[in-house]
Amino acid sequence: MTLYELGETAIVNRIVKRLDIEFEDCAIMDLTDTEYLVATTDMFHRVTDFPDEMSAWQIGWMCAAATLSDIAAMGARPQGMLVSIGLPDIESAFVDSMIEGMDACVRGCGTAIIGGDTDSHQELTICGTALGRVPKDRILRRRGANVGDLVCVTGRSGMAGAGMAALGKGLTEQEIRDSIAVKKFFEPIPRIKEGIRLAESGAVTAMMDNSDGLALSLHQLAEINGCGFRIRADMLPAIPEQEGLRDPDLALALYSGGDFELLFTVRAGRLADAMRACELTVIGEVTLEGVFIDGGGGDGSTIKEIEQRGYRSLVRPR
Amino acid sequence: MTLYELGETAIVNRIVKRLDIEFEDCAIMDLTDTEYLVATTDMFHRVTDFPDEMSAWQIGWMCAAATLSDIAAMGARPQGMLVSIGLPDIESAFVDSMIEGMDACVRGCGTAIIGGDTDSHQELTICGTALGRVPKDRILRRRGANVGDLVCVTGRSGMAGAGMAALGKGLTEQEIRDSIAVKKFFEPIPRIKEGIRLAESGAVTAMMDNSDGLALSLHQLAEINGCGFRIRADMLPAIPEQEGLRDPDLALALYSGGDFELLFTVRAGRLADAMRACELTVIGEVTLEGVFIDGGGGDGSTIKEIEQRGYRSLVRPR
Repeated sequence: MTLYELGETAIVNRIVKRLDIEFEDCAIMDLTDTEYLVATTDMFHRVTDFPDEMSAWQIGWMCAAATLSDIAAMGARPQGMLVSIGLPDIESAFVDSMIEGMDACVRGCGTAIIGGDTDSHQELTICGTALGRVPKDRILRRRGANVGDLVCVTGRSGMAGAGMAALGKGLTEQEIRDSIAVKKFFEPIPRIKEGIRLAESGAVTAMMDNSDGLALSLHQLAEINGCGFRIRADMLPAIPEQEGLRDPDLALALYSGGDFELLFTVRAGRLADAMRACELTVIGEVTLEGVFIDGGGGDGSTIKEIEQRGYRSLVRPR
Repeated sequence: MTLYELGETAIVNRIVKRLDIEFEDCAIMDLTDTEYLVATTDMFHRVTDFPDEMSAWQIGWMCAAATLSDIAAMGARPQGMLVSIGLPDIESAFVDSMIEGMDACVRGCGTAIIGGDTDSHQELTICGTALGRVPKDRILRRRGANVGDLVCVTGRSGMAGAGMAALGKGLTEQEIRDSIAVKKFFEPIPRIKEGIRLAESGAVTAMMDNSDGLALSLHQLAEINGCGFRIRADMLPAIPEQEGLRDPDLALALYSGGDFELLFTVRAGRLADAMRACELTVIGEVTLEGVFIDGGGGDGSTIKEIEQRGYRSLVRPR
């Protein structure tokens, strides 16, 4: 059987099982008696990961942001990034600008590009690896959610998806520059500060980033924790009206990807501590089983199952 | 100007200068008061990096070996490897075998694959990232060589090149299996143990791996250290006669790549300590300037400059 017949989830499951590794945003290693080193790697390709409208600078930025988002999801402090680049025969100014964008994002997260590798390749391919460190008694993993915990997110789920949808309508260059959602899609800001502060708060029980979309992330948390979720549609953060979308657009909020926001669970009595750590929105609670969305006023009449589908690739198929 | 007009060395120089990073086999970070963390990343592509004759298992092995070789070159102990894989629609058995080869190499080096990423891509692309740790007072860098130091190598420079040359003659499958040089080319063993023991010996002043070929590696060391080298042709380790090559074949020993051996300099009075650390061959000495090979009996009559050219890509062009 070929890989594409199997599907990506099945491939990853095979590899993960064979190597006996865990599903986490980062690999975790002992650093000292009191600290962990966390490390993550992500690969990006020109055609499948970057819309045509993105600039070289934004391509560099997004690679760094997507990679560092996994460090944020563990509550860790970034400790450097490595970058391997497969380069086609493009203008050297493009590469300069891409490196500048990458560097700007990495520096904005308080760290630096510390090494890398280049070779020639027919399609621009970038592989980012980020390192971080986090106190052992503060690290946040995907496992740890308890029934009754509150489900929270940073930012607005579906913003990047709204940007993608807006691009699909054929915006002018000016409209692309003016769109908050396109900016969020093209230049996501990794939630490093928020992740560290949430870890320090001691209020968070489980965390991951929602880059594959809220729905898939919830299902992943449900499986790892052996729990369920009940999300309240009316509590999902609104997407700005200027994007010309229904408010909130449920399909976007649940099934679009590329947001790089944090999704986490908070002990019921500790919400105030989490709210002191960063801006967040409570969107539901941890239940015994099933991943549901309550679309109405909470009377149970409009409860629907959230489908287990997500959005691995960031751009529309061509 | 496009990248290919500039050339890879110029591209790397531009990026390195822009980011203010150093030319080392690994990036180096503070871990504790007494230890460094080292990290390296390498990208490989099906067409340019792996000969047709290589099995899936060998492709996995070589990726791991090439990446871990950079950890060995710092005298560090491996602490895990991350792997990003861009996968075309190939048989899943191919991927299983590739992961097995990678895992075997990594385990043989006393560590494990601890995380990764997969996505779909038109050409098989693998990006390996390896981490290591090393005591601060033991780390071996490219800088540190002094005039009068002895130049040493592990293994036999040119073995992988001999394997490549043998393949070019159109070997049968049985001949490929029987060839020591092809085996060395397809399944290089990273010199982890040797690197650690050389670092512990305190006898080594500078070290790197020779994966780009002996000539280019010597020129890189000469530039970083502001020194020269005089290599003795008659001291270069011989390549086995069965490969049907002149013994030693100078062009292979100097200008072919893919060996993943260690190239290092040893304080003149400390050779015995280095020899207790691992099997090595003295091939020359550090001089004031110029990178030369003494092809004759050492009377100076046959001294030639070693050209500054190397071998970044591991396979013959198609």
